[in-house]
Amino acid sequence: MTISEMQIGDSASISKTIAETDVYLFAGITGDFNPVHINEAAAGNTIFKGRIAHGILSAGFLSAVLAMKLPGPGTIYLEQDLKFTKPVRIGDTVTATCTVTALDTNKNIAKLATTCLNQKGYVVIRGTATVMPPKVY
Amino acid sequence: MTISEMQIGDSASISKTIAETDVYLFAGITGDFNPVHINEAAAGNTIFKGRIAHGILSAGFLSAVLAMKLPGPGTIYLEQDLKFTKPVRIGDTVTATCTVTALDTNKNIAKLATTCLNQKGYVVIRGTATVMPPKVY
Amino acid sequence: MTISEMQIGDSASISKTIAETDVYLFAGITGDFNPVHINEAAAGNTIFKGRIAHGILSAGFLSAVLAMKLPGPGTIYLEQDLKFTKPVRIGDTVTATCTVTALDTNKNIAKLATTCLNQKGYVVIRGTATVMPPKVY
Amino acid sequence: MTISEMQIGDSASISKTIAETDVYLFAGITGDFNPVHINEAAAGNTIFKGRIAHGILSAGFLSAVLAMKLPGPGTIYLEQDLKFTKPVRIGDTVTATCTVTALDTNKNIAKLATTCLNQKGYVVIRGTATVMPPKVY
Repeated sequence: MTISEMQIGDSASISKTIAETDVYLFAGITGDFNPVHINEAAAGNTIFKGRIAHGILSAGFLSAVLAMKLPGPGTIYLEQDLKFTKPVRIGDTVTATCTVTALDTNKNIAKLATTCLNQKGYVVIRGTATVMPPKVY
Repeated sequence: MTISEMQIGDSASISKTIAETDVYLFAGITGDFNPVHINEAAAGNTIFKGRIAHGILSAGFLSAVLAMKLPGPGTIYLEQDLKFTKPVRIGDTVTATCTVTALDTNKNIAKLATTCLNQKGYVVIRGTATVMPPKVY
Repeated sequence: MTISEMQIGDSASISKTIAETDVYLFAGITGDFNPVHINEAAAGNTIFKGRIAHGILSAGFLSAVLAMKLPGPGTIYLEQDLKFTKPVRIGDTVTATCTVTALDTNKNIAKLATTCLNQKGYVVIRGTATVMPPKVY
Repeated sequence: MTISEMQIGDSASISKTIAETDVYLFAGITGDFNPVHINEAAAGNTIFKGRIAHGILSAGFLSAVLAMKLPGPGTIYLEQDLKFTKPVRIGDTVTATCTVTALDTNKNIAKLATTCLNQKGYVVIRGTATVMPPKVY
């Protein structure tokens, strides 16, 4: 979708249930072996009462929405701000949603509100993305 | 490391060469199958001239520095701002560095400058992290 | 096994319990993020009452029997017909069985009945494979 | 997309460059350790002159098109016929395309021609899928 096809308020989402596999592969790729992610014995003694997913893993779903749906393939990712507001546990279902909030057609720059909710409707991440939509597709 | 052990200017890094495997697993976890990441035939026709890694993948190395080194295990991740300034290609070596820039001992909040460089010394990501260091460890 | 060593009625099997990991890796390889496979919240509201494995994942076990056991290494896979008759849930144990039904020694072509059963004995896939057995091994 | 929204000739595709990682994970999930897939020393001595991807792996991309695009999420997969017409090598880019060829609105059954091409335009798989499109979405 080019910027001239986007409108303020346009929105797209993807959802995934977070598997232990997701958390372990993400740890393996990044080297983030924080015990709270991959050590159930230690994580059980924290305020989280068990292992939680990496915050940046859920941010990856926002990237997926931008790349796959809105604006979609060909998008160039410029900026992302993230606030991690609640933990995501293994077994939680995360819904990542991006909503267009500003469009600068001259500069070909779009801003989107980016939010991840869990299956109970609580916000686990909120923030803002800045992207260049594809000029052709 | 608790906040009282941290000083402005403290710095820590990790480095990894980005394998095709890293990019493919990251795509598989997040669903971000942007052709620029997983389609060499299509990516070769873009300004990138080949497949590049997901920006959020490199952000994961910043998360790893925070969780593993500075402040280290027990850290709670509050915020992360990211600017994606250059592409990371398969085969590039990314060095993620976090440097303490502000400490609020009363609120137990630390801010760190977060930067990823490639093997040529170019900045590929820059931004800021906000974390709560562990109170005990 | 060359075609001259095969007989009508010869049969071989493999079995595997389907892990969440299998389903998530298969989704990650293929990009098949159908909610019924990777979204427990959504899949729970379908007639399947929870996440199920990709049908083609179980077909992979038939490929494994052909390649590993009957006729075995060196086999060239020509055709496969598949009917997906029941869902496979995470935690089900699938037994894939291939049974020789026809042999054309002149053309070096074998046909096999291909069936996947779950742990209750219900057929989850049935179909037919056509292969060229190895000429030497 | 419900069956009443589908038309004969509708078509959708996805593309992916096949990584060694894809082939190795597929081998690991299914147990299909045919030397031609995971043994470069042995595969180099076959008519393929090197390792090739599992045929059923590429069939997974057809499943992804059906589940993600046409008819899309909620589709129930009934049948798939496959002819493996050429090998897919590690590094090849596969484009999987599904095209509607028949619609039975009363029975809610759609048939699609299913084809995988490599980056040179050669057909590597052809066949037919039979699916039940979602009744609502």
